[in-house]
Amino acid sequence: MALIVQKYGGTSVGSIERIQEVANKIIKYRQEGHDIVVVVSAMSGETNRLLALAKEINPHPRGRELDVLLSTGEQVTIALLCMTLQQMGIPAQSYTGSQVKILTDDTHNKARIMQIDHEKIQQTLAEGRVVVVAGFQGCDENGNITTLGRGGSDTTAVALAAALKADECQIYTDVDGVYTTDPRVVPEARRLDRITFEEMLEMASLGAKVLQIRSVEFAGKYNVPLRVLSSFTEGGGTLITSEEPSMEQALISGIAFNRDEAKLTILGVPDQPGVAHKILGPIAKQNIEIDMIIQNTGRDATTDFTFTVHRNDHQTALKLLEETAVSLGAREVTSNDRIAKISLVGVGMRSHAGIASTMFETLAQENINISMISTSEIKISVVVDEKYLELGVRALHNAFQLEQSN
Amino acid sequence: MALIVQKYGGTSVGSIERIQEVANKIIKYRQEGHDIVVVVSAMSGETNRLLALAKEINPHPRGRELDVLLSTGEQVTIALLCMTLQQMGIPAQSYTGSQVKILTDDTHNKARIMQIDHEKIQQTLAEGRVVVVAGFQGCDENGNITTLGRGGSDTTAVALAAALKADECQIYTDVDGVYTTDPRVVPEARRLDRITFEEMLEMASLGAKVLQIRSVEFAGKYNVPLRVLSSFTEGGGTLITSEEPSMEQALISGIAFNRDEAKLTILGVPDQPGVAHKILGPIAKQNIEIDMIIQNTGRDATTDFTFTVHRNDHQTALKLLEETAVSLGAREVTSNDRIAKISLVGVGMRSHAGIASTMFETLAQENINISMISTSEIKISVVVDEKYLELGVRALHNAFQLEQSN
Repeated sequence: MALIVQKYGGTSVGSIERIQEVANKIIKYRQEGHDIVVVVSAMSGETNRLLALAKEINPHPRGRELDVLLSTGEQVTIALLCMTLQQMGIPAQSYTGSQVKILTDDTHNKARIMQIDHEKIQQTLAEGRVVVVAGFQGCDENGNITTLGRGGSDTTAVALAAALKADECQIYTDVDGVYTTDPRVVPEARRLDRITFEEMLEMASLGAKVLQIRSVEFAGKYNVPLRVLSSFTEGGGTLITSEEPSMEQALISGIAFNRDEAKLTILGVPDQPGVAHKILGPIAKQNIEIDMIIQNTGRDATTDFTFTVHRNDHQTALKLLEETAVSLGAREVTSNDRIAKISLVGVGMRSHAGIASTMFETLAQENINISMISTSEIKISVVVDEKYLELGVRALHNAFQLEQSN
Repeated sequence: MALIVQKYGGTSVGSIERIQEVANKIIKYRQEGHDIVVVVSAMSGETNRLLALAKEINPHPRGRELDVLLSTGEQVTIALLCMTLQQMGIPAQSYTGSQVKILTDDTHNKARIMQIDHEKIQQTLAEGRVVVVAGFQGCDENGNITTLGRGGSDTTAVALAAALKADECQIYTDVDGVYTTDPRVVPEARRLDRITFEEMLEMASLGAKVLQIRSVEFAGKYNVPLRVLSSFTEGGGTLITSEEPSMEQALISGIAFNRDEAKLTILGVPDQPGVAHKILGPIAKQNIEIDMIIQNTGRDATTDFTFTVHRNDHQTALKLLEETAVSLGAREVTSNDRIAKISLVGVGMRSHAGIASTMFETLAQENINISMISTSEIKISVVVDEKYLELGVRALHNAFQLEQSN
């Protein structure tokens, strides 16, 4: 008998019929003898409906009252799910974020969880009930309703699992797990049975958007085993855990990719201390996030500097960079928004040499030119021409034999 | 400078445009220097939308989770109204029933208010803000969300006005006040500037459904001046207050009527002690409410017994009464659901004789036969054939010169 926290997203609870399917899943686990705490999102479309009302008043709604408004979405779902469970003969009790209570700071619209008062939940579980908690919301010290920002329901689930010392936190989504890469690009992509928190963070931040990054960080920090499962099909999904010394690690867990970036280069910048700050400062000031950064020493006493930004920010960043080029006396600015980033991710990389060279060799064999390289302890990313994205991912998937279970 | 509690119903806040009109009304009072506490209902249609979802699960939803569900309706409105006021430059803060807090008993779906913690509201008013409170909802001692039942927002407003010792509680509706009778029946019907709580209770319970009876009782009990006004037009509405000795009372304040009843008669019942209970007991057991009751001594040692029930309960009551007739050895059962009740209401009745005889004379002149009569201290009700309803009301309105201001 275990304590399991389950989280169902908006699509999974998008209609009464879907909610009934969720109830059936809960009942299945309950019949196996487990204690169940369920976290739910607003029914799909509901948050957007509420936002549209708010935008009739103010095109950029924010603040305390927006949280009062949006938090009703999850409150509707917890009530409907409990009513469904009760109708099926299963005792259930709902809690809003304020009732639990999920104490957050007072940063409305993107609050952070500080503490969870889990006594009420444990008492309700002890009474033999399923506990259903509204995701995405909490309250501050003064009882004001707060929300955690989009995707916050995943964070609620992980935080609850941590506070309750749950045996597992199951995140139900519309995919049945984490794959070695996107199956739409590589049909042979394989569902991973297991992946480490670190790998998942790299996969998620690189575009494999299965889980909110914040919730994975949180789970890693408190060591909560996290399982990604499909709401709509059977299967064990993918378990995300901390690395165990005994685990026989695959070299590479997966290949992430991303075509949302643009690359900007400033050439022939006089190489002086502080030049990187002078180039990136104006960009950062506009709240444009910078992803990869590469600096090479160029000819004579100048340097070449390349970085990537989100494709939406390409034009703004380019204009700023051109201004900077003038003031720094740089030779030239170039940019390209038809690029793609491909990343190999795997904790096995740490202890194995030669991964990078296999990657570069594989791409070379396909005549794919690499224009940027960036590495971390468990990841190698390359930027290539966008048109080579699918070819590159397929070639690498094959080269590292990711279709085979290790 | 006064403290005013204003309540706006679902139609008044049915769209963002309507909410903006409400905000304008609030601002007008604020500019006159008043402190304003606003109570709002769910946007029109919202409660029914939520109920429809619940009924997909259970055709007769009830209990704790139904309150969690329905209370979101008002929560949406408080947020939208505050956002609107803020957008117009007026500081405003919303409170749910749990936040205020409006402490109720734990009778879900029809809870009763026990106590209101008005400190938070007074503090927010002192900060120069408009306070917007969700109507219809509260919470019990354990923090469970409760609702007061349909129309509960009026009760919330009156209870808040009582707790805050407000100078006036204004109920905004889609009519501009309480009329001497329904203007659709008597075009000369006049809006009353003033009416007593007792008269209003008789008017409301007799079918002039402007205010929830509970809220009028509450206002009377705590002596909260209550004003009924239109959300959509200007005007002072009708003030409902306790009777002042100095007030020059009109004989009759208004004429209420009701065509929702059916009349049942059991004839020739052997007249024994306890016979009334034997007749009405089985009806009450089926939760059928009985309105008027008349018992006449008949011929020989028998009695005739007549009562009215809601027209929807006519057939059920008739069947029960026929069974009772057999067991009591009564002569006959008759019934009629084509009846109407007309009532004269006025505190002036207490000190003036002759009202009843003028009423009967007026109806007789129009050849309207009276089949039942019932009186209370401030009301005389008669039952007539339904087809004479309009004629009777018009004749009485004219006879008592209700179109003239007194």
